[in-house]
Amino acid sequence: MKSFHLSTALVLGACQVTLALWPIPRSLQTGSTIVKLSSGFDIQLSGINHAPDDLSDAIERTKSHLQNDKLQRLIVGRGAADSAKVKSAPSINKLTLSLNSGAGQAKSIFEEATKDIGTRSEGYSLSIPGDGKTATISANSTLGLLRGLTTFEQLFYDDGTGTSYTYQAPVTIQNDSPAYPWRGLMLDTARNYFSVKDIKRTLDGMSSVKMSQFHWHIVDSQSFPLIVPEFPELAQTGAYSSGEVYSPSDVQDIVTYAGQRGIDVLVEVDTPGHTSIIAHSHPEHIACFEASPWTSFANEPPAGQLRLASNKTVSFSASLISAIAKKLPSKLFSTGGDEINQNCYTQDAQTQADLAASGKTFEQALDSFTQATHAELKKLGKTPVVWEEMALEHKVTLANNTIVQVWISSQNALAVVNKGLRIVHAPSDYFYLDCGHGGWVGKNVNGNSWCDPFKTWQKAYSFNPQQDIPASSSQLVYGGQQLLWVEQSDPSNLDSIIWPRAASSAEVFWTGTTGPDGSPLDVGTALPRLHDLRYRLKQRGINAIALQPHWCALRPGACDL
Amino acid sequence: MKSFHLSTALVLGACQVTLALWPIPRSLQTGSTIVKLSSGFDIQLSGINHAPDDLSDAIERTKSHLQNDKLQRLIVGRGAADSAKVKSAPSINKLTLSLNSGAGQAKSIFEEATKDIGTRSEGYSLSIPGDGKTATISANSTLGLLRGLTTFEQLFYDDGTGTSYTYQAPVTIQNDSPAYPWRGLMLDTARNYFSVKDIKRTLDGMSSVKMSQFHWHIVDSQSFPLIVPEFPELAQTGAYSSGEVYSPSDVQDIVTYAGQRGIDVLVEVDTPGHTSIIAHSHPEHIACFEASPWTSFANEPPAGQLRLASNKTVSFSASLISAIAKKLPSKLFSTGGDEINQNCYTQDAQTQADLAASGKTFEQALDSFTQATHAELKKLGKTPVVWEEMALEHKVTLANNTIVQVWISSQNALAVVNKGLRIVHAPSDYFYLDCGHGGWVGKNVNGNSWCDPFKTWQKAYSFNPQQDIPASSSQLVYGGQQLLWVEQSDPSNLDSIIWPRAASSAEVFWTGTTGPDGSPLDVGTALPRLHDLRYRLKQRGINAIALQPHWCALRPGACDL
Repeated sequence: MKSFHLSTALVLGACQVTLALWPIPRSLQTGSTIVKLSSGFDIQLSGINHAPDDLSDAIERTKSHLQNDKLQRLIVGRGAADSAKVKSAPSINKLTLSLNSGAGQAKSIFEEATKDIGTRSEGYSLSIPGDGKTATISANSTLGLLRGLTTFEQLFYDDGTGTSYTYQAPVTIQNDSPAYPWRGLMLDTARNYFSVKDIKRTLDGMSSVKMSQFHWHIVDSQSFPLIVPEFPELAQTGAYSSGEVYSPSDVQDIVTYAGQRGIDVLVEVDTPGHTSIIAHSHPEHIACFEASPWTSFANEPPAGQLRLASNKTVSFSASLISAIAKKLPSKLFSTGGDEINQNCYTQDAQTQADLAASGKTFEQALDSFTQATHAELKKLGKTPVVWEEMALEHKVTLANNTIVQVWISSQNALAVVNKGLRIVHAPSDYFYLDCGHGGWVGKNVNGNSWCDPFKTWQKAYSFNPQQDIPASSSQLVYGGQQLLWVEQSDPSNLDSIIWPRAASSAEVFWTGTTGPDGSPLDVGTALPRLHDLRYRLKQRGINAIALQPHWCALRPGACDL
Repeated sequence: MKSFHLSTALVLGACQVTLALWPIPRSLQTGSTIVKLSSGFDIQLSGINHAPDDLSDAIERTKSHLQNDKLQRLIVGRGAADSAKVKSAPSINKLTLSLNSGAGQAKSIFEEATKDIGTRSEGYSLSIPGDGKTATISANSTLGLLRGLTTFEQLFYDDGTGTSYTYQAPVTIQNDSPAYPWRGLMLDTARNYFSVKDIKRTLDGMSSVKMSQFHWHIVDSQSFPLIVPEFPELAQTGAYSSGEVYSPSDVQDIVTYAGQRGIDVLVEVDTPGHTSIIAHSHPEHIACFEASPWTSFANEPPAGQLRLASNKTVSFSASLISAIAKKLPSKLFSTGGDEINQNCYTQDAQTQADLAASGKTFEQALDSFTQATHAELKKLGKTPVVWEEMALEHKVTLANNTIVQVWISSQNALAVVNKGLRIVHAPSDYFYLDCGHGGWVGKNVNGNSWCDPFKTWQKAYSFNPQQDIPASSSQLVYGGQQLLWVEQSDPSNLDSIIWPRAASSAEVFWTGTTGPDGSPLDVGTALPRLHDLRYRLKQRGINAIALQPHWCALRPGACDL
């Protein structure tokens, strides 16, 4: 038994350097004192009159998490290993939240979270004294207070008897604010459908790691689940079923839920490609509809693209995007623009006739098409977001404020910033959550996924947002996101394919490339914290998967190479 | 709209050749008539007096599935596309089950399913007349009747109004029986814990595809969740927690549940490696306990192996295996035998002293150890099962009836049959469900899993059980199984990582390499059936994942390469 006990002691020692925060704050000082929450612990506002409802709700959620997470420390013995010390530890009676002087009247978290990207105030300061008494969070906005509450929740464990405690007090965080404003996750709800409940659960996970941007790839060639009141025929003929839709109230429900949790929702209506399903109600607008073989007309079945050279189709597309965008609080809207198949247009007699009649080349027509949809966004005061092909492969004029999502390869980021455009990292070689599960097209015995291998959390975590970017362009990097395309996913594996992997980019784009002590982010020191996050997500009903055998999770470092 | 309707019609046409059976019967004749179940439909026994309770229960489950699956056909329009024809279709009032003459008194399914491998009677015949009236299933055993019921359930769809119908009557299946008796699935419950409920749900999935063998890798170096009454200290100190255990009644519950569903449970107690956790209560029996670096002492942490040269440890191991095996109905028991680390023993002073004292080499000691544990199994009338190293890498005398699981590579099967030993295919290059999700050991940024890439359902489906095996040895091939090692799995992704992939081997080892029409099994024709299975599993509460976008599932062939 001797060696076992020795080993346990060593592991406990090693564990003291970890702290269950994810993302790790950019500024952090900790001690080694245990303090617990008193039985009458409360969270109160200080100097904030007329607290916005969503701030009050956020406080209630934090109190609920502190009471219900019941996450015990990941050490041999779990909470019981600390319980004797917890009994005699000083108590915190109160957490007070305050806005810094000059912050002005408190706005709702929703309002703060849906401000234009780059103008949101997410920083906060937090203090937990080592002698108990009162903990504090202060910020310049309610959104900052939310971020602080999210940190606070993660500091507490359960000792197995219902007492919440932190073991690294005093904790001092001074102005922890994100390195990048865009910390995102993309979900495709077109190839397979996800319920509002599934999406809300995903937003819960995002909020718990301070993500700021949900990219909702809501429609695609396979289905059109979005009910647009001005174009009801699209979902009527394009949704998988009458139950697999997002009504206007569903969309409002989701964007409200997200905003209240510090997340802005970027809706994408991908154009002119990825639109086959529109032909079910508007065949006049779609070229090469379900043309065969699909491999000649699209990157995946079914083929079909908007007739970008047709004036009627341009008008339809602009009206559709306007109708959708005008209902959304976000200042951002994506018109997509990826994977345009030229052969589809070459083979489409109408498009050829339209081009001939207008005297435009394909690229000129694409430019006109894009100008038309982006003009609608501009009218609504919104910023366009596009996939990288629009900047790199086509001769499209993009407004200076356009945000370009770099997806084909991380190596393409430089080319985009060299055009003076803002970028969001979404590279398939780091951030595609769907890669590595084999090819999904039929009759393909040995097919692997096009973006093999599987992108591990470690791979995503190793991403450097400024890699290849000259210092003079560093301000063009707005952040990044992991992405789930759902050819082989649906609600069955939504949580397990996203969590905890997607937390990797949440930390990379919040914390940056170095931790609070100045040392580079490192998968070795990150793993114990990521275990904690994963077990905590489980406690909150998110089916995050195991990263290692539980034996390893209880013994930080013991399963390292 | 024209082209859309044309496309839909084509797809409906293509769909007629599919049939939602998995595994596809080895004998099958179908028509193209729709027949439905009458509102008073019942399943009755014919000529079976004193029906075993588990047969009656199986009948009730089938009736429940027929009522509650509510799976609509995977075609555009779903059940509604058939509902007009269903209304006027003839009705089946009754399904009768009978045992063939000479079958003798009906025994329980449990008793039939737990007979020795190779002696189980699983064949059945089934008829659904095209004019409705009475459907029949006959078999030589209640286990055969269960297999027939499982087929019957899969033939029926819901038309969206609660009516169950088949669209390919008359259906005639004459003596569909499995090509191989061992159609298995292995689950590791040691690296991470799974509840009894999780295991039962997995058994439900297995039964629905006529799998016959659940391989329960119940303990390993990381944890010892099995409560053995004679050795209570093992679970007391080795389980992850007092709640994460399998009590004797849990084990009986699981083996009973399995047997009633046509599944025998092979329990494995891996020896002499993979036993580190035993040191928590019996340090005297474990060499190189948690020795560092683990890479020098074990394939994965923590290191620790039974002191195979110690008489006391041999006696302990034999007693432990006997105590566990004697409670189990199966005629099979696995003593493991994989990944023995020789350096562990070389560095262990006690093992070196034991070897010197006995005058045995390491291999002689391993042989004695194995003889001792296998002698206990023989006393209990059980057949030993081992991993391939015991046959190929070590000088261990194995009884002729030993079953060897070939896991390192499919190419090693030949070497084992060349020794005259029976094999079960469990090759990591086809059947490991855990591969391809990246390395799980810590501090390993770019590490992929050792058995990359991900094993797709198509890859597993392409396996030929007789590949490389000379005809003279073909009878030594007892079947095969897919396997889930759970370093990166736990209840969060249990269903999604297993289903529907594990159905691939269920068909390969039931149907063999050719379908009922004599043509080779083919991923192209299999896919629509596998979609059906997957959607049906979902209806039954098993979180099987999407294989393709729903758009493709509704249009067989449309997403083929």
